[in-house]
Amino acid sequence: MSVTDELLENNARYAESFSGPLPLPPARKLAVVACMDARLDVYRILGLAEGEAHVIRNAGGVVTDDEIRSLAISQRLLGTEEIILIHHTDCGMLTFTDDGFKASVQADTGIKPEWAAEAFADLDDDVRQSIARIRANPFVPRTDAVRGFVFDVATGRLNEVK
Amino acid sequence: MSVTDELLENNARYAESFSGPLPLPPARKLAVVACMDARLDVYRILGLAEGEAHVIRNAGGVVTDDEIRSLAISQRLLGTEEIILIHHTDCGMLTFTDDGFKASVQADTGIKPEWAAEAFADLDDDVRQSIARIRANPFVPRTDAVRGFVFDVATGRLNEVK
Repeated sequence: MSVTDELLENNARYAESFSGPLPLPPARKLAVVACMDARLDVYRILGLAEGEAHVIRNAGGVVTDDEIRSLAISQRLLGTEEIILIHHTDCGMLTFTDDGFKASVQADTGIKPEWAAEAFADLDDDVRQSIARIRANPFVPRTDAVRGFVFDVATGRLNEVK
Repeated sequence: MSVTDELLENNARYAESFSGPLPLPPARKLAVVACMDARLDVYRILGLAEGEAHVIRNAGGVVTDDEIRSLAISQRLLGTEEIILIHHTDCGMLTFTDDGFKASVQADTGIKPEWAAEAFADLDDDVRQSIARIRANPFVPRTDAVRGFVFDVATGRLNEVK
């Protein structure tokens, strides 16, 4: 049995005690942008209940055009106002460089990715970079309540980046 | 007090009973691509524990260059092999068009987004579109175990798209 099939059995049990539907707009008017890392259960880390916040995730928790797209839709169409960014310790993005990653992909496939891999060397600096990208972008209307954090995978704590 | 400050108090409680760190590579060798919708608590829907799967999320759960970037890093550097895609009923992406969204942003800011908003008219069709984008891309090496689902926000069930 594949992992996917096992998880579908979990979903059948989840549905047994499920009560819905909740409204579409996030109840707490919040969007979270976090790393895809498996250890980050964003709802538990922040104590979020279903229906409270948009959760956007990718490799690194970085801000590219696709996160701007999601944040623009979140704020303009669904009324969110605050943004929380979450990077974390022991992140895979600290372990390689864009040039190295793209060269390995090119060696394997013959094609060099036309996008940046978005590797970074310093967690706090990259959180600041992500905040700066949001603030500099014309399509995200509310940027007065954007705060960035590093999640410590050893302690479970969010530490704010100033 | 802002919502962010309230959630930081939740995080302090989370950290009190936290035990870590877990290993970096996802234990179940799985990556999930899901919509950012607030009602989708992906870990609970699939019965995932911390450390088991990468979770990638955006408006719609669609596949753009940034999801390809995340999936390429997930598979090439961190060993994932299966992919689960999750769209859901009552999705905001069904309620507008790319042209309409971009025109409203342009009317508000004077600038037309250079990216697609990725609105769609049919859930099953867009799940198939996302699977096709992954399969057609040279940078994601393992595409033999990609399956797509629509989460029903009324029942909590994942229904597979064939």
